[in-house]
Amino acid sequence: MAISIRHLASVAVCLQCLRVPAQGGRLLVVPVDGSHWLSMRILVQELHARGHHIVVVFPENNLVIHRAPEYSSKTFRTAYSKQHVRDIYRSLIRFPFINGTFFERFSENLRLIQKFSDFFLITCEGLLRDSELLRELAEGEFDALFTDPFSPCGSIVAAHLSLPSVFLLRGVPCGLDYEAAQCPRPLSYVPRHFTGNADRMSFSQRVHNVLGLVMESVVCHVTYSRFDELAARFLQKEVTVKELLSRGAIWLLRFDFVFEYPRPLMPNMILVGGMNCKDRKPLPEELEEFMNSSGEYGAVIFSLGSMVSDVPIETADQIAEALGQIPQKVLWRHTGVKPSTLAPNTKLMKWMPQNDLLRHPKTRAFISHGGMHGIYEAICAGVPMVLVPLFADQLENVLRIKNQNAGILIDLKNMSSRDLVEALNTVINDTRYKENMMRLSSLHKDQPVKPLDLSVHWVEFVMKHKGAEHLRPAAHELNWIQYNCLDVIGFLLAIVLVSFYLMIKCCTVCYRCLGRTKKQEKKKSD
Amino acid sequence: MAISIRHLASVAVCLQCLRVPAQGGRLLVVPVDGSHWLSMRILVQELHARGHHIVVVFPENNLVIHRAPEYSSKTFRTAYSKQHVRDIYRSLIRFPFINGTFFERFSENLRLIQKFSDFFLITCEGLLRDSELLRELAEGEFDALFTDPFSPCGSIVAAHLSLPSVFLLRGVPCGLDYEAAQCPRPLSYVPRHFTGNADRMSFSQRVHNVLGLVMESVVCHVTYSRFDELAARFLQKEVTVKELLSRGAIWLLRFDFVFEYPRPLMPNMILVGGMNCKDRKPLPEELEEFMNSSGEYGAVIFSLGSMVSDVPIETADQIAEALGQIPQKVLWRHTGVKPSTLAPNTKLMKWMPQNDLLRHPKTRAFISHGGMHGIYEAICAGVPMVLVPLFADQLENVLRIKNQNAGILIDLKNMSSRDLVEALNTVINDTRYKENMMRLSSLHKDQPVKPLDLSVHWVEFVMKHKGAEHLRPAAHELNWIQYNCLDVIGFLLAIVLVSFYLMIKCCTVCYRCLGRTKKQEKKKSD
Repeated sequence: MAISIRHLASVAVCLQCLRVPAQGGRLLVVPVDGSHWLSMRILVQELHARGHHIVVVFPENNLVIHRAPEYSSKTFRTAYSKQHVRDIYRSLIRFPFINGTFFERFSENLRLIQKFSDFFLITCEGLLRDSELLRELAEGEFDALFTDPFSPCGSIVAAHLSLPSVFLLRGVPCGLDYEAAQCPRPLSYVPRHFTGNADRMSFSQRVHNVLGLVMESVVCHVTYSRFDELAARFLQKEVTVKELLSRGAIWLLRFDFVFEYPRPLMPNMILVGGMNCKDRKPLPEELEEFMNSSGEYGAVIFSLGSMVSDVPIETADQIAEALGQIPQKVLWRHTGVKPSTLAPNTKLMKWMPQNDLLRHPKTRAFISHGGMHGIYEAICAGVPMVLVPLFADQLENVLRIKNQNAGILIDLKNMSSRDLVEALNTVINDTRYKENMMRLSSLHKDQPVKPLDLSVHWVEFVMKHKGAEHLRPAAHELNWIQYNCLDVIGFLLAIVLVSFYLMIKCCTVCYRCLGRTKKQEKKKSD
Repeated sequence: MAISIRHLASVAVCLQCLRVPAQGGRLLVVPVDGSHWLSMRILVQELHARGHHIVVVFPENNLVIHRAPEYSSKTFRTAYSKQHVRDIYRSLIRFPFINGTFFERFSENLRLIQKFSDFFLITCEGLLRDSELLRELAEGEFDALFTDPFSPCGSIVAAHLSLPSVFLLRGVPCGLDYEAAQCPRPLSYVPRHFTGNADRMSFSQRVHNVLGLVMESVVCHVTYSRFDELAARFLQKEVTVKELLSRGAIWLLRFDFVFEYPRPLMPNMILVGGMNCKDRKPLPEELEEFMNSSGEYGAVIFSLGSMVSDVPIETADQIAEALGQIPQKVLWRHTGVKPSTLAPNTKLMKWMPQNDLLRHPKTRAFISHGGMHGIYEAICAGVPMVLVPLFADQLENVLRIKNQNAGILIDLKNMSSRDLVEALNTVINDTRYKENMMRLSSLHKDQPVKPLDLSVHWVEFVMKHKGAEHLRPAAHELNWIQYNCLDVIGFLLAIVLVSFYLMIKCCTVCYRCLGRTKKQEKKKSD
């Protein structure tokens, strides 16, 4: 009887330890402002719809994070104004217009990166200084923390509150994400940031890729070294951003291999590219009319994303002139001054329902800056693209679409009206672009679980199981020498060398002995 | 108008090229006999249920592959009898009784591996010699080929028929699978075969792991070198087994990270461990009565798998004696001579519904050889195990369960009755074993898609898209030197050395010039 009772008790204990908040879990969200929040919000909305209680922590002065009924908002003060936030995000449009040699452009880029890093750092300091807010969060009984490791602030909070964390990201701009997750990135076919390489590289491109390591480490240093200091100061222990990121239970990566070059992944990396794709909803009447009025030629959708909806007036004039030369109607998301060359076929809008427009049967092409949202909406809708990368990961993104022959890349700085007209005519009239985009669309959609459902599953998994420890590789416990087995190689090499030395020594001694014996024999015989 | 028609035509072409056999696809299956077929059959049955037409090709004389209504059977002759097949599989029970030093055991193991390799080779030659059958298959209009790369015969047929292939496997016994898929296996935390290492290794274990590479390459040579010759002869071109396997579109791996140590994966590796777990079906009346008669102590299930259901009579006597000493009832799958020491609490059976028995509420423990089927059925049912590994991957499997403290390992060769009794009492009465198994069970079951559905999805994916080319890494196009960037490192090193040399040279010249000038100045001043 004793056995049976113990047995039953053990099962009860086990079930108890796995309190399963399939509904009614508590999730703390520390987002990054800007377009990054737009992805995260989709998942937050879905988690709310599934009955979880969500608390989002964000700075009072921000660009796109607002209070909403789906989550409780907790704000904190920062040492900058709302106007400063607007200005700093508006400065992003400077990226594509940087001139000079490679090194001049790289150092100017570094300066801009440094500026953004400063901005994220000040934001994080605002949060970590708010002891009242931190106390509230500590009492919040959260099951997990959901953040974007682009800014490591969420990871610092997770470490402070001892919460398991889930990351949602496209990537950290210097490969620190892969390093932190212990994910191999063979230099021979995984292109490094800033190199413009694809997965198939010539010898010189591989040289460039190896040198890319240096650039990545410079960017990592510029972006995260002061976060190392902040984390160590706040958590009162020696810790780096890489170590904090390495504790991420699940990495939700906003791409899949329809878009990204095939490469190794770790067990806790989950691909959720296209989680923003939604079924088509009806357009507002006015837009529906506009689209249908495009006739057999169809329409072109044009947006440079949520962060940069206006471009310098000279460039806007050039673009407007080009758009006037195509037979399609054009919907252009543009918040700047109306270009003087705007043609009657082009309609400017402050905001547009991009996903619904791309899925409209009249849509023929999409002019985009190459953000992940737009690219996946285009892939889902099967619409070929004209790509005008501006900053951050956008050049790398558009190169992937270009390599698939599903879009044409245009350099905004050196673009003429003629270039844009030619690119549009090509992607619309050369059927291969449409075919390639349809192929990508078909491959992308053929998934066993929709990316949004997959994301929800893994966030809930971490909430239920208090992490995903069984997916954490033992590599995290090794230093660089151990990971690469350099100590073992050194040891084996030493054994081989010593054996070789001893063998030579033995042979020499034997040879000498033999020599002596012969001499003695000779003497005797003499 | 021309634009519109071209546009529509292109879409039509694109849809045409993606003929989607969601139902009614045609799949060719080239299985491996023995327990490997039992996994494959589950998926074949499911694919049949979803409306696909399946043709299974197998040797006339085999162990467990029979004609069945779910598939069309195509058989071929081989140069061995049915009795020979039975004898060769029965010889598996010799593995755990091999004595001697490590090297004696390793070489005896190699001899047995060689014997099996010969057997697979003869089987494959039988298939490749049957030109009539091959002609039929060529005319079969298959969408894909489904095989177990443990024997590369299926891959040779896939290359011959130019069919994309899907693999289902636990692993190839020498790591050739990971090499062929270009999947990194860092030596520092991914244990090599035959080493008995886990993912966390001491220095000496890492040395052993590095040396394990040599053992793996010997086993690879013994197992597959003659298949290299056969493939090259049959396909009339220079080709190796590794190259053939590298063409696998999807690798369905019969484990997950609840069981396996976390390690990198490639995009085309899909984890389907536990695809054999099924919901509990009612037991036959007699068995249900037997289980219920076990009272509060419950029952123990005992099976050494489908390949070895009887053990030598002395061992069987020892086991029966031990089983008589526990208060539980025991169901033992045993086809050999009835042990003289058999106690009344033990019932022998020729076959048992293992999954249903493990899921019975009276089941307290499972004595198993550590095959993947049994392990996953135990994980799904949350039943702690006593593990008696016999051959192949079983020792490696049971070490994983032992490391999770969800089972106890027993060495069949040196086992006494007392050892078995103690092991059974421990896993039944020490609640931690049950708790750990329940934890594994909970983690394993918390998946977004059931492993069997996931397997079906990916087989259908390959059938629809004629492969999964977008998941194939560019690494396949690189040789060893390129993959490891040794040429780039050499080049950069040469540049550094030449620069250094030139710098030294310049300094020397400058120093000499300076020396001369000083001398001249000194002369002048003298």
